[in-house]
Amino acid sequence: MRSRDEAVAATKVDLHEVAPGLEEYLARAAYVQLTIFENLGRVIATAPSTAAKTALGHAAELSIAKHRAIIAELARLGVDPAAAMEPYTDEVDEFERVTRGADWYENVLTCYLSAGFLDEFYAALATGVDDDAARRTADLLRGESGEALLQEQLAAGIDESSRLASRLALWGRRLVGDIMLVARDSLHLHQDEREEARIEPVFTELIASHTRRMDALALSA
Amino acid sequence: MRSRDEAVAATKVDLHEVAPGLEEYLARAAYVQLTIFENLGRVIATAPSTAAKTALGHAAELSIAKHRAIIAELARLGVDPAAAMEPYTDEVDEFERVTRGADWYENVLTCYLSAGFLDEFYAALATGVDDDAARRTADLLRGESGEALLQEQLAAGIDESSRLASRLALWGRRLVGDIMLVARDSLHLHQDEREEARIEPVFTELIASHTRRMDALALSA
Repeated sequence: MRSRDEAVAATKVDLHEVAPGLEEYLARAAYVQLTIFENLGRVIATAPSTAAKTALGHAAELSIAKHRAIIAELARLGVDPAAAMEPYTDEVDEFERVTRGADWYENVLTCYLSAGFLDEFYAALATGVDDDAARRTADLLRGESGEALLQEQLAAGIDESSRLASRLALWGRRLVGDIMLVARDSLHLHQDEREEARIEPVFTELIASHTRRMDALALSA
Repeated sequence: MRSRDEAVAATKVDLHEVAPGLEEYLARAAYVQLTIFENLGRVIATAPSTAAKTALGHAAELSIAKHRAIIAELARLGVDPAAAMEPYTDEVDEFERVTRGADWYENVLTCYLSAGFLDEFYAALATGVDDDAARRTADLLRGESGEALLQEQLAAGIDESSRLASRLALWGRRLVGDIMLVARDSLHLHQDEREEARIEPVFTELIASHTRRMDALALSA
């Protein structure tokens, strides 16, 4: 099995042609991160226990810090961050809407799977943008995350209920499609077969990570 | 007019008899801050513009950092933070429930007024707890806040609609009662007239600050 870094290195050259420009890259990554944060805020507000609230509070702190750091990169470019994000909000808001779960655990799974996948996606995409600000963003996205905290909450629920496990397995399988779609929105594709071949290894690696996240909860992906 | 520091100094001795112990103080301050953060999360998720989301994201980052720092003080005492907060969650959750606004601006006003009042209240109460952890918490609560960011959002809305201004003035007047009640829940009162006299200057000062917050929006308190 290849390590994540080797996989990113292998796809390094390929992503140049399909990556957005720096401003679009930062704007999309920032707004996606804001949505991840908002989803965490919702699961904190509706958490069934004070312990869950506090654990997820840490995850939310890490996520909002990432959003704010990417916003700072946009400001450093001399652009207004809100105006820069504006063109991409509809797509991401739609993603948020369709990935809303039916209950608290489904919403925690949405946070867990989408943050894991999209942080890794934008970190990989940075290699195609090829700019210091994008590289700093990639380092940030590969840094400390709330993944383990979210996983703990989910594992505790799954331990108590096998019905929850099968429901979450279904929800996770549905989510991955929507997550891949919002990731692909960031790619400048021209319905070109060569391009499709080029991005395939990136998604293969991202899906492998997704499967590992599901496996960590003993859910079949 | 006395400065805030003078007012806190003047009430320093008085609060000893009514202040909770250190663990209760930290637990209540931490859970109240978590509620302030959750309310900010809600207004971010429902914000009418990307600019508002980003501005309020900064306020949320400051608030969750305060919650996490107080939680760290509890952990330093060797207690489980979630278990320490548990006895006080019902009162604070009820406060959250009754201070839910009818629309986005009312909810932003709830964030603005309750964070302003309660951060100042717990900073003042620390003088009665008389412990380094409480003093660090007071410094933290007096530190950078999202108040100006919230004020800007409200001012922009009020500028556009005089009807909104009168509705928010009413809402602000209603809120102050509920905010004072949740603050008083942290005091160990014994229906003693001397105690009431003792805490009066604290609340006089807090209400003066509340009035300043309303005045800053040209709303009559």
